[in-house]
Amino acid sequence: MSKIKIAWIQGKSQGSLEKNALYYKNKIEDLAKQKPDLILLPELFLSDYFAIEEKAENLDLAIALESDFVKQFTNLAKTLKVNLSFPFYEKVSSAIRFNSMLVIDKNGNLVAHYRKMHIPDDPGFYEKFYFRPGDKGFQVADLAKFKLGLLICWDQWFPEAARLTAMQGADVIFYPTAIAWDDNEDQSVYQEQLDAWKTSMKAHAIANNVFVIAVNRVGREGHLTFWGNSFCVNPFGKEIYSDSVDEVSTCLEIDLNDIEEARKIWPFFRDRRTDSYQALEESWL
Amino acid sequence: MSKIKIAWIQGKSQGSLEKNALYYKNKIEDLAKQKPDLILLPELFLSDYFAIEEKAENLDLAIALESDFVKQFTNLAKTLKVNLSFPFYEKVSSAIRFNSMLVIDKNGNLVAHYRKMHIPDDPGFYEKFYFRPGDKGFQVADLAKFKLGLLICWDQWFPEAARLTAMQGADVIFYPTAIAWDDNEDQSVYQEQLDAWKTSMKAHAIANNVFVIAVNRVGREGHLTFWGNSFCVNPFGKEIYSDSVDEVSTCLEIDLNDIEEARKIWPFFRDRRTDSYQALEESWL
Repeated sequence: MSKIKIAWIQGKSQGSLEKNALYYKNKIEDLAKQKPDLILLPELFLSDYFAIEEKAENLDLAIALESDFVKQFTNLAKTLKVNLSFPFYEKVSSAIRFNSMLVIDKNGNLVAHYRKMHIPDDPGFYEKFYFRPGDKGFQVADLAKFKLGLLICWDQWFPEAARLTAMQGADVIFYPTAIAWDDNEDQSVYQEQLDAWKTSMKAHAIANNVFVIAVNRVGREGHLTFWGNSFCVNPFGKEIYSDSVDEVSTCLEIDLNDIEEARKIWPFFRDRRTDSYQALEESWL
Repeated sequence: MSKIKIAWIQGKSQGSLEKNALYYKNKIEDLAKQKPDLILLPELFLSDYFAIEEKAENLDLAIALESDFVKQFTNLAKTLKVNLSFPFYEKVSSAIRFNSMLVIDKNGNLVAHYRKMHIPDDPGFYEKFYFRPGDKGFQVADLAKFKLGLLICWDQWFPEAARLTAMQGADVIFYPTAIAWDDNEDQSVYQEQLDAWKTSMKAHAIANNVFVIAVNRVGREGHLTFWGNSFCVNPFGKEIYSDSVDEVSTCLEIDLNDIEEARKIWPFFRDRRTDSYQALEESWL
């Protein structure tokens, strides 16, 4: 049986850690009735997208690996017997914070812990203020039936990240994300931005012959309108599902056989010039 | 003045080296009247796509760097005062052949020599029989007004190749190509294949904030229908021009300022994790 059911929640921030925990908990319970193999949540789902500004008090939104929130969602995964992603603002100490994601399996075991490797910094997305770049490298979570590759948002734009995740055997690469249209930009580029975002991830699916799923938030926060459009691409780069811009929970069946099929038809890994890629470790040539 | 005019010929093989040389020569002379900064030709334009089968006598289609064909096109570039790409089946010795491309500048100087790094081998595309994988690494041609990155066909599917070419300062990455629909495959996948092909290269444009141009042949050869659709993508990943499936010559103005613009808005190179890419030199992890 190579078919698996993957579900995700395209949610809207409710304004506080407690409210968001409850909002997503309810939606996870609903989704679990469809017996998915995995439930995916958007980047930093426990809070508003605080990186919209540089504000020292927002640093207090970070939670520790030992926090009650992590325990709550670990218990939830165990109770519902469902594998669960848990993207969160991770506090290691008062000096060190990461943009992180856990994968908790259906037995309540922590099976992966990723820290966002590529950190953006643009007007309205001041992430370098909040997050130290990840120090755990690229990660996959072994979920018995399949392997989930873990990347986060800005990682979407880096083919190196997708490649190194796929090379660990990821069947599905997952990008929780918080990407938005900005009132300060011309509306004429909105569609182009959305297209480029999808194109970049579709290409990762093609180059690595894997499924790719991005899960975004929706709703308006300050001058940002989070554009939803959470989607799934198959290993041939075909969009097999896309959400709209509304709050929605989605459950989708995918066939992991497509990966082997794609790799027989497009055997890119066979032909990589690993003898000639050293300079990828340089900044510029 | 950051605008340049780039032209290309989406041609159909005329069956022999001599006939193709004449066919393309005539089209180059026509195109030159529009005063382009560069004229681009498809992969292996001097012959039928001989790699459709493994046949030892086709090895004789390879020509030396010193051949009359190279001289003819070098003189043509000089006479017409136009920069010219020259993709060809290169014979180094009776034992060594490459799938290569020269760039000849408008003064008749050889400014770059690339040998296809990634070699495919699929039913109907038996290139590993004909070509040794390139031994000159990734290359750009400095054409004074701009830098042209040189990759060939199957290289299209490898983000590493685009990255290493862009890192040398390429403004435009060029892929001469010979890609076709195959009678032996189900027509239901034709559109999907074309889409994936374009998506892959659009993503290279986005990830590296460069222009990308692919120039394909058209026409029917054996069980293959070369699908044309030569196209240009801007540094935001937007297709700004695409040919149909017909024989056609195209001349297009592009604005190199778009590269700097894209790099200010999507500063991906700033954030690459060059400390964590070593494993890209591995086959699998």
